[in-house]
Amino acid sequence: MQLALDQAERAGAAGEVPVGAVLVESFSGKIVAAAGNQVEELHDPTAHAEMLVLRLGGQRLCAPRLPGCDLYVTLEPCPMCAQAISIARLRRLYFGAFDPKGGGVDHGPKIFAQSSCTHVPEVYGGIEEKASASLLREFFSERR
Amino acid sequence: MQLALDQAERAGAAGEVPVGAVLVESFSGKIVAAAGNQVEELHDPTAHAEMLVLRLGGQRLCAPRLPGCDLYVTLEPCPMCAQAISIARLRRLYFGAFDPKGGGVDHGPKIFAQSSCTHVPEVYGGIEEKASASLLREFFSERR
Repeated sequence: MQLALDQAERAGAAGEVPVGAVLVESFSGKIVAAAGNQVEELHDPTAHAEMLVLRLGGQRLCAPRLPGCDLYVTLEPCPMCAQAISIARLRRLYFGAFDPKGGGVDHGPKIFAQSSCTHVPEVYGGIEEKASASLLREFFSERR
Repeated sequence: MQLALDQAERAGAAGEVPVGAVLVESFSGKIVAAAGNQVEELHDPTAHAEMLVLRLGGQRLCAPRLPGCDLYVTLEPCPMCAQAISIARLRRLYFGAFDPKGGGVDHGPKIFAQSSCTHVPEVYGGIEEKASASLLREFFSERR
């Protein structure tokens, strides 16, 4: 999660919403991919940190489904990212801060609780929550 | 929608689930991007047709938000794609076949009906529904 926080910090310094993600091979703990948000830099509405590591992970492991991987992300995934995590069939999701406004795991549509959700990962929220949330708070307080 | 159907057909011929999408500039009707599903080919769990045209559209118009664009897609978007459409702030969504199992617009989490959904496009479902659905039916009947 520290590496995800580093990625979040770097994203914030580049003017992106400071969220970072790391995809890890479950059995070895080896890092498969790490990224921060790049929505503005890439001009890509879908370039949330989670989506970027899923794309990179699929390419690097030559498979569109990644059941042998876990994801660490500093913020509760939005509904887009939560559904992508389900589609990719990840084993576990660890996330930092909860997101009552934009989250899609414990809030909003609660993607994994939908009866139509065909793969539900194990979910652990609130990991390094304070550090993750304070990055976001600082970022938005400087902009308002 | 005919171009989206062509993309879907091409995707099916390549072994992908036959769904196609086209992103169009609202005021001119000009095509910004067209793609079929490429999940298997790209080893990318997120490479649904809708996601690909949103990514391409953002790059081509140099903007991560595309309020001047409409999307045509042959199948009701899944929750991932529906949320991406909201994030990209598209003006209109036109889709073909309804998807009671995997859809996220009229089914499942009904993304645009969530109170946390900050941008809701105009939605028109069932456009060229029969042609869209029969492509999918043929594809799956050949594989079962």
